[in-house]
Amino acid sequence: MENFRLHIPTDIRFGKDRLGELPEALAPFGKKVLLTYGGGSIKQSGLYGKVLDLLVEGGFEVVELSGIEPNPRIESVREGARLIKEHQLDVILAVGGGSVVDASKVIAAAAYYDGDAWDLVLDSSKIGRAVPIVDILTLAATGTEMNSGAVISNLETKEKLGTGGLQLIPRVSFLDPTLTYTVSKWQTAAGTADMLSHLFEQYFNRTEGVDVQDSLAEGLMKTAIKHGPVAIKEPENYTARANLLWTSTLSLNGLVGRGRNGGWTCHAIEHELSAYYDITHGIGLAILTPRWMAFCLDNDSTTHAKFAAYGRNVWGISGNDDETVAREAVKKTYDFFKQDMEIPMTLPEVGIETKELVPEMSQHAVRNGGLDGNTFVPLSVRDVETIILNSFQEMTF
Amino acid sequence: MENFRLHIPTDIRFGKDRLGELPEALAPFGKKVLLTYGGGSIKQSGLYGKVLDLLVEGGFEVVELSGIEPNPRIESVREGARLIKEHQLDVILAVGGGSVVDASKVIAAAAYYDGDAWDLVLDSSKIGRAVPIVDILTLAATGTEMNSGAVISNLETKEKLGTGGLQLIPRVSFLDPTLTYTVSKWQTAAGTADMLSHLFEQYFNRTEGVDVQDSLAEGLMKTAIKHGPVAIKEPENYTARANLLWTSTLSLNGLVGRGRNGGWTCHAIEHELSAYYDITHGIGLAILTPRWMAFCLDNDSTTHAKFAAYGRNVWGISGNDDETVAREAVKKTYDFFKQDMEIPMTLPEVGIETKELVPEMSQHAVRNGGLDGNTFVPLSVRDVETIILNSFQEMTF
Repeated sequence: MENFRLHIPTDIRFGKDRLGELPEALAPFGKKVLLTYGGGSIKQSGLYGKVLDLLVEGGFEVVELSGIEPNPRIESVREGARLIKEHQLDVILAVGGGSVVDASKVIAAAAYYDGDAWDLVLDSSKIGRAVPIVDILTLAATGTEMNSGAVISNLETKEKLGTGGLQLIPRVSFLDPTLTYTVSKWQTAAGTADMLSHLFEQYFNRTEGVDVQDSLAEGLMKTAIKHGPVAIKEPENYTARANLLWTSTLSLNGLVGRGRNGGWTCHAIEHELSAYYDITHGIGLAILTPRWMAFCLDNDSTTHAKFAAYGRNVWGISGNDDETVAREAVKKTYDFFKQDMEIPMTLPEVGIETKELVPEMSQHAVRNGGLDGNTFVPLSVRDVETIILNSFQEMTF
Repeated sequence: MENFRLHIPTDIRFGKDRLGELPEALAPFGKKVLLTYGGGSIKQSGLYGKVLDLLVEGGFEVVELSGIEPNPRIESVREGARLIKEHQLDVILAVGGGSVVDASKVIAAAAYYDGDAWDLVLDSSKIGRAVPIVDILTLAATGTEMNSGAVISNLETKEKLGTGGLQLIPRVSFLDPTLTYTVSKWQTAAGTADMLSHLFEQYFNRTEGVDVQDSLAEGLMKTAIKHGPVAIKEPENYTARANLLWTSTLSLNGLVGRGRNGGWTCHAIEHELSAYYDITHGIGLAILTPRWMAFCLDNDSTTHAKFAAYGRNVWGISGNDDETVAREAVKKTYDFFKQDMEIPMTLPEVGIETKELVPEMSQHAVRNGGLDGNTFVPLSVRDVETIILNSFQEMTF
């Protein structure tokens, strides 16, 4: 186990019927609020009205930034920072999914930065002071509600990049499973794939002696795999929504990742698909992941033991031969996404029909993600091309 | 899953060779330090000298409170509070195991309290402001380094009671596995039993739909069971010590317990054994736990499913009959403590040779622990007597 620091001061308010705590949660940070949100879904669900009523009753002054995109764009960040500067706002209240919170994080830093906000995405060391963030989450997926990271897209430069800083960790996060009842099948599936991918990226790693982290990861994988399909079939099943929501938060708050060395893989590749084609992040991850797993098994036999551990501890696959168990685990993963989560598992089905951009996306993925460096299996541009090309047709086992 | 709040702002510094960060970690809280510790072990190990050098070099003013007992007593708490008041100290640096940190927590609160410190143990609502605490942990066991609780003994009234408050959560905890190399077999076994007992107390619970919490608990149980015996055999095995240490911290920081309703059982009974006989807390827990498990199985068939889940997911026991799997799991638990952890598994072996205090201890346990209320299996005084009396001889399976 490597040395690590873990310091997550987010005050989690988990459960239903506790929105009334919002004024008390916001008050320590000030009275002038930037309310950030995405499309109209929080207006349709009535959440917007409830929040606004609470803010007005509580004597808060509210400036709004709406229209934050599913893959949040740097233009929204610039606009949010401008609003904070212009109105001298004290605190951001982000209401929505991971995209709204991610955009709010970079807005929070950009409000205290003199240059262009994109600088803070390209170089997180430029992030200094930040406006405090409180959020009300409406989607179980990214884990941004209890961590320091954010991912922002720049359509001009075709880049989708991560940044972050301890200053950006939300101060208070309201996690109400009932707010995720209206999340569509598609977004529920994408969110489940996203949290599983976070766990995979951290779990498939070469650091030895991290049994605590591995056990926690396996436990969280099992809860996502158990409750994802229930939430798809019964969108208002509280237990399923609660377990998915808490799983997503714990999957990327440091518990599983700290104490390890080594970079991620599938996220970097998927970020290219999203940057070029604006596809749903979690769906892209679901499509890429089993192909990446199979590529690892085919090309590096030292990966067999860890994939076998995944098969045994998460899927309950028995058998002594690591490679057999590992390959069965990849099939289980693929079938889970395709059958249980009803995800279209090829790129053409999500609108990526031609292959001419594959070399360019692969180059960017290797460069932006450092995929040829300290990853579980280092990948060349050619390797990434293979993984993406294999995602154009169904897998066979 | 029940609603919950989780807010653990402890800054964890995990790993070896990072004591040099101590002055930076203390500085935000002030320059006048109450250094609390137990017996001479930190002097023998050289840790005391290193810490004092760092403090002196850093320009800190240090007042010492030594001699804090393994079951920390209210007299030490009173003395610590007196020292803080007299010297107007800013921050407590606790160096030692859970007892030193627990005592420091109540000292921290008593320093701002006008009455007798024991009031704060009897009634946690009297805890107000508290002096900040930084700790350097030397024993993997109680989890106090990342939570709000403390247990204090009063030999005069023969009481050992828990108290706590959010103000008491340590601000910074240094968790260095190498500092636990010198922990004896006995204390390593006791610490492992303590962390397992924390997990059991939270896991054996009636709240439905807490798969996240249950999966995390099972994962942490597995790491304790894997690494405890290694640490006994190879006290300087870094991986074993690191996994035990991190397991102990995560076992009682809210991750496993929040979202549930219901009280603990074995701890309340053990607190009576410790209060009357001053035995090692973790050893008492190891002795009582399998008897309590067997009592549950014998007297309440609705517990079979959960004990079977424990058997399957933690011990890998196969089989379809819940009761058979459950009873095998109890045997595994007993054998683990007795054989792998080398714990004497009867009360006479730890110096409790006569039975005349059993009724009185049982009465106190039921009253102080609310054992006849909302516990996994509600226990009468008679039931507790049975469990304690069964602990006088070896178990048979």
